[in-house]
Amino acid sequence: MIPSGLLPTGFRDRLPPHADAAAAAVGRMLEAAFAHGYERVSPALAEFADGLAGRLKAARAQDLMRMTDPASQRTLALRPDLTAQVGRIAATRMAHHPRPLRLSYAGQVVKLRASQLRPERELLQVGCELVGLDSVAAAREVVAVAIEALEAAGVRGLTIDFTLPDLVDTLAAGPLPLAEDEVEAVRARLDAKDAGGLDGAGAAYLPLIEAAGPFAAAVERLRAFDSAAVLASRLDGLEAIAASIGGRATLTLDPTERHGFEYQSWLGFSIFADGVAGEIGRGGSYMIVRDSGEEPAVGFSLYIDPLVDAGLAAAPRRRLFVPLGADARVAERLRAEGWVTVCGLTPEDSAERQICTHVLVGDRPQPL
Amino acid sequence: MIPSGLLPTGFRDRLPPHADAAAAAVGRMLEAAFAHGYERVSPALAEFADGLAGRLKAARAQDLMRMTDPASQRTLALRPDLTAQVGRIAATRMAHHPRPLRLSYAGQVVKLRASQLRPERELLQVGCELVGLDSVAAAREVVAVAIEALEAAGVRGLTIDFTLPDLVDTLAAGPLPLAEDEVEAVRARLDAKDAGGLDGAGAAYLPLIEAAGPFAAAVERLRAFDSAAVLASRLDGLEAIAASIGGRATLTLDPTERHGFEYQSWLGFSIFADGVAGEIGRGGSYMIVRDSGEEPAVGFSLYIDPLVDAGLAAAPRRRLFVPLGADARVAERLRAEGWVTVCGLTPEDSAERQICTHVLVGDRPQPL
Repeated sequence: MIPSGLLPTGFRDRLPPHADAAAAAVGRMLEAAFAHGYERVSPALAEFADGLAGRLKAARAQDLMRMTDPASQRTLALRPDLTAQVGRIAATRMAHHPRPLRLSYAGQVVKLRASQLRPERELLQVGCELVGLDSVAAAREVVAVAIEALEAAGVRGLTIDFTLPDLVDTLAAGPLPLAEDEVEAVRARLDAKDAGGLDGAGAAYLPLIEAAGPFAAAVERLRAFDSAAVLASRLDGLEAIAASIGGRATLTLDPTERHGFEYQSWLGFSIFADGVAGEIGRGGSYMIVRDSGEEPAVGFSLYIDPLVDAGLAAAPRRRLFVPLGADARVAERLRAEGWVTVCGLTPEDSAERQICTHVLVGDRPQPL
Repeated sequence: MIPSGLLPTGFRDRLPPHADAAAAAVGRMLEAAFAHGYERVSPALAEFADGLAGRLKAARAQDLMRMTDPASQRTLALRPDLTAQVGRIAATRMAHHPRPLRLSYAGQVVKLRASQLRPERELLQVGCELVGLDSVAAAREVVAVAIEALEAAGVRGLTIDFTLPDLVDTLAAGPLPLAEDEVEAVRARLDAKDAGGLDGAGAAYLPLIEAAGPFAAAVERLRAFDSAAVLASRLDGLEAIAASIGGRATLTLDPTERHGFEYQSWLGFSIFADGVAGEIGRGGSYMIVRDSGEEPAVGFSLYIDPLVDAGLAAAPRRRLFVPLGADARVAERLRAEGWVTVCGLTPEDSAERQICTHVLVGDRPQPL
């Protein structure tokens, strides 16, 4: 017999006031995105597992929560991520919509397994995707919308950590040649900041480890390192994005960070906020697979749970108790003025029991 | 090979502008409920299947979409309904919270099977539960909040169809005795309006079929039928609720309707809206099972999908195209004034391509 309140690992209920705080944060984020022309899509919660897996990298396809569907006699999976679904919608039902296409979304995603880093298996994901472009102008807009969405939700002290996901490929194809079987090893060692492991042809990549850090200094070191100027357009792009952000976020650059950016093309970024453990969002440029070829896109995802857990938007509640028998029209008028009214339904009910801050006396709220 | 855009039966993606319309409707409904003191809970998307099934009537327990959880090696199920989860939260984690407890919720629910009447298997459910009371005053508040929530979302032309779920039990225990094995048969025949099938002791129940219809006349016929006055308190309660609704909804009474009200106690109601096929919501009084005994509650659920499908809140979009190179500060100021700005990111981009209604000329929006 299971205690009736017990939930599976990684699942949880949100109670007041946290559930309202999460909903309010989502609402404000998508409102900010809407003001930039991003319109919402609500993808299905479950899909055919093989279709969904086909649009994910192998590592993430293994992370699907699967179930057998008696209606179709096929295996379905819960979405582990909304970005891939938005890509599917852009590539199919909205294929003929003019580009760039601006879409936003919010919804629950479910992972098969919890990790130590992220114990939740059900997460609330919010984001925007700009489909049809992955230019600097497109990335600049997407980063700006991410910042505005977070600011609108009351998140302060943002740090954006940029990365260049295809850096090693670019250098290996140019001035710092690597054998095909060396590329992956060099990538892994750079990602692990494992300077000692970079030997042979990989040793030439050593300065990249030193290039991580505060944005301006890191770009300067990368420019010095990039004597062949194969990275110049990327660095120009990064600097243009950074300039448009101005002082709204602290910027860092970790050019060889690749964890979770395996499917990104020239640009990736992670978002952090003061007082919140771990990253609160990420984004970058990538390619959407279509029937004929690929289409560039750039977007971001934000995770609401760590923000709410850190106390986001726990606004003070102002609740007005309306004793049993009070004039309902007075309560109605006060609600129209923005009050939350809690009506007594029994003679025993009281402002204290209903955890109210005010009580209606005559036709006026009085603080308790 | 599955075409990549195909979804399992009963699942679908919502596209612009319908996804925004659905989110806006949910937001307005819960804002209206919040003004009455209803605070949000967000129950987990999945639970242990046996725990979830234990809180549902047998018929609904069979409607669970199940999956095996590798983490716990147990069977989970997606929630088919949020009311039972809110009851669980009220009975466990919020057991010691003062009563009455006012909770609201919104989220997706998933059914195992589609029906002809309801082809969707993934539905967006919104609702409120008032836990700790099922008095007339409690029911009156809940019905009023349901109406306000629907009005806030722009739903017009409401009809509320009341029913008395325990009517036959009450009469059978009093003036119109039935053998235990007759009760179910009489209930089923009344529900089917099968007058010919009501024979023997059941024949005395025949007038109840005639009592369905417009509210005032139906109550009058029921009072005439109820010579022993065992229904008097219920009918007084219904009339008090009806009086508080005033002209905000058309009221009907179908005292023997029971489809879907199997778990309700003295009061049930269905909500309909002009121009929307089928019911858009339902509610009533019921009992929540707790470790020690039961606790009364009254609540309602609304279904957003039929409302959005019927064209709810498809507000006209006003989008302002901001050509490439325009002053970003002008666009920012216009967003602060409520404009949706869509920035050109390439020289080829245009107001027409971006389906805009206005274009920025100098620092002023001009209609197209």
